[in-house]
Amino acid sequence: MAVELLDNEQTELLLNQLNEALGSGMFVHVRQMLLNMAASDIALVLESSPPRTRQVLWQLIDPELAGEVLEELGEEMKDKFIRQMSPERLARAAAGLDTDDLAYILRSLPDSLYKQVLQSMSIQDRSRAEQALSYPEETAGGIMNTDTVTIRPDVNVDVILRYLRQLGSLPEATDMLYVVDRHDVLLGAVKLTALLTCSPSTPIRELIDADIEGIPATMSDTEAAALFERHDWVSAPVIDAEGKLLGRITIDDVVDVIREDAEHSMMGMAGMDDDEDTFGPVLKSSFRRSLWLTVNLFAALLAASVSNLFESTLEQFATIAILMTIVPSMGGVAGNQTLALVIRGMALGHIGQSNSRWLIGKELAIGFLNGLLWSVLVFVAIWLWKGDLALGALIGGAMLINMTVAGLAGASIPLLLKRLKIDPALAGGMVLTTVTDVIGLFAFLGLATAFLMR
Amino acid sequence: MAVELLDNEQTELLLNQLNEALGSGMFVHVRQMLLNMAASDIALVLESSPPRTRQVLWQLIDPELAGEVLEELGEEMKDKFIRQMSPERLARAAAGLDTDDLAYILRSLPDSLYKQVLQSMSIQDRSRAEQALSYPEETAGGIMNTDTVTIRPDVNVDVILRYLRQLGSLPEATDMLYVVDRHDVLLGAVKLTALLTCSPSTPIRELIDADIEGIPATMSDTEAAALFERHDWVSAPVIDAEGKLLGRITIDDVVDVIREDAEHSMMGMAGMDDDEDTFGPVLKSSFRRSLWLTVNLFAALLAASVSNLFESTLEQFATIAILMTIVPSMGGVAGNQTLALVIRGMALGHIGQSNSRWLIGKELAIGFLNGLLWSVLVFVAIWLWKGDLALGALIGGAMLINMTVAGLAGASIPLLLKRLKIDPALAGGMVLTTVTDVIGLFAFLGLATAFLMR
Repeated sequence: MAVELLDNEQTELLLNQLNEALGSGMFVHVRQMLLNMAASDIALVLESSPPRTRQVLWQLIDPELAGEVLEELGEEMKDKFIRQMSPERLARAAAGLDTDDLAYILRSLPDSLYKQVLQSMSIQDRSRAEQALSYPEETAGGIMNTDTVTIRPDVNVDVILRYLRQLGSLPEATDMLYVVDRHDVLLGAVKLTALLTCSPSTPIRELIDADIEGIPATMSDTEAAALFERHDWVSAPVIDAEGKLLGRITIDDVVDVIREDAEHSMMGMAGMDDDEDTFGPVLKSSFRRSLWLTVNLFAALLAASVSNLFESTLEQFATIAILMTIVPSMGGVAGNQTLALVIRGMALGHIGQSNSRWLIGKELAIGFLNGLLWSVLVFVAIWLWKGDLALGALIGGAMLINMTVAGLAGASIPLLLKRLKIDPALAGGMVLTTVTDVIGLFAFLGLATAFLMR
Repeated sequence: MAVELLDNEQTELLLNQLNEALGSGMFVHVRQMLLNMAASDIALVLESSPPRTRQVLWQLIDPELAGEVLEELGEEMKDKFIRQMSPERLARAAAGLDTDDLAYILRSLPDSLYKQVLQSMSIQDRSRAEQALSYPEETAGGIMNTDTVTIRPDVNVDVILRYLRQLGSLPEATDMLYVVDRHDVLLGAVKLTALLTCSPSTPIRELIDADIEGIPATMSDTEAAALFERHDWVSAPVIDAEGKLLGRITIDDVVDVIREDAEHSMMGMAGMDDDEDTFGPVLKSSFRRSLWLTVNLFAALLAASVSNLFESTLEQFATIAILMTIVPSMGGVAGNQTLALVIRGMALGHIGQSNSRWLIGKELAIGFLNGLLWSVLVFVAIWLWKGDLALGALIGGAMLINMTVAGLAGASIPLLLKRLKIDPALAGGMVLTTVTDVIGLFAFLGLATAFLMR
């Protein structure tokens, strides 16, 4: 029986023990420890280990468990291990997997290997895999499993109870049986709790929960996850355009979608790929982060070229140069606050055409109000520091302009990007910072030039 | 029967219809529309509406549904509506709620109202509420419900089947029955799927899933959620220090925890409170964002005071002033990438004492490598732009220093903050940016002063 890790302390302890045993070359001992662990805990240990330790651990894992462990790993690591496995070992690992994980493994293989693995599979696994592969990865069809238990509407509960006893077991996270007609068209579902609490002579037809509608296989996985969240579902049927039952989505896959989408927003806003592995190799990570840094270099050069326009002002007043970073900085923070709010609202499905104008107006107002407040504060601060009233007024004025623009830009940039089908979580921050940097420098240096250079 | 919204388009359409009806004062029509909607969809509509529309909609909602709608709302809005309700209406709304939501409502009331509402409740609700209130909000005990169905180990399945038929219904998301001894100590659980698939003469004792251990009521909700995610649970029992069954946690509450934690990281990194309501009132939002902007003003002034140290260099070379924003900007982006990675890793429980040193080393290496690459690029760019080899070399050197520091700081700041019990998602970004700004300016202006001012 697998011992499960119950808290962070236990995990920490286990990691230390494993590392010690690995360090002193006690591989037999490590293998024994791994045999006593649940697949999900082995995955946690792998995710928490540096590359070299990982490799050793992976070799020591029971091949029967390899598939289940793969299921639980992050994408970057999963892909790496899949590429190392032989077609036979892959087919064996794939045997016990959920349909969606099966499809994932096959998708990530090069064409030559793909055929070999498919041929090594059982006929049943092969047909499951082929069906799942017919839907794109980020749709309801792509995350569904085909392990549905279906029943007919025209029998009584006792017939179904006998049928279930014959089956002997039900798939994980089964909370309902799907009622279909003879053409496999979904008529509804019967909850297990209903089967257990009603009289055995009740006709199935009377127990059908008509509130349960099928999710179209082509719906995006994010939208399907929002439905699960809103309706507190444990599982939901997936149907094709004709209403035929194709499979079901279970809450554990939905949790993964929610987790991934949230990570995507958070990592994206920092200019990171959410697939990046925390303990991945250095060179690969360096490379992954390059795109964002390149874009930022251009943005920074653009900002510098704005300052360049005011070279003569900067030549004459070194104080202006000293203070000029304050205005873009405050605008950037204010704009990013708005951006985060709007990106979250869009992810939750709260923002649409009917309310986006109101939202932009509100953020513009907040930007203006905060601009007023901080322009006064910065005016006082600069006046006290530099003893120059005019300078304080200049920087305060620039601050008011830039923070108002930041509110407007923070709200409208993600909406605009979404309309252009560009991911706001990824591009929003960079576009916004460029805007607040450029406007901030223009406002401050422009005002300084107009009022000081006479 | 409630009609459920199935996708974003339907939501958008409905919002438009509601707004139109509200705009033309057809309140009876709106009330009718709301009667046909599920509580979760009404909550979605409220979350997506500006404050004034919300107020009107809230008045039109069926009082019987008010509790369920409250359950689904974000904290800021929920608190506001709770404050508007009379004690009687609150007690009525609370009647049908899950224990954790009941506790939430009571917690958010002022003391005087609290007693009134508690007195208006049924005895059963009151004792449920009092139990839930004995655990802090962000623990397993704080998110548990007391709606467990318990059985004894020494009977056969047919006895339980008869018992369940007598009960007539089971709580939402019931996937297992808990087996307890006569002192209510948890012995294990029996899955509904096991009850349905085994012979009625099987003793319960044989069906007990001993893998299922109780979650201690004092465990943090985030840790409990990680266990759910790792083990694909639908529900799990909560126990006290003596092993007695207190209640259970269900996956829908876990999804809320995962969502909230993820939002906290994402919003926190942008300097936002994750409770902030997208369509909340302007003044309140302005105020909420002030703290962060104040902190940033000090950080920006600190950076400016660094530039101030090099006033004479800036006086002599306006070009230095023009280019000086590039180095902090690149360092900030590189550091933020690392910060996001580490904060995610900490949230997933991947980072502990055993691997944090390795991680810092890795990020330092990436910072150095990226620093090398971009110092070369920026050297070429500045040489081409300004036709000055020395200037290109200076900025390249400063870039290398700052990006290496950014890698080191991005990895070690969140680890340090966590040890100091300060939330890294909230404070990490600001501390990091201050470090990269100060070091970046010091490096560039310092090098420029050393090499140009002779």
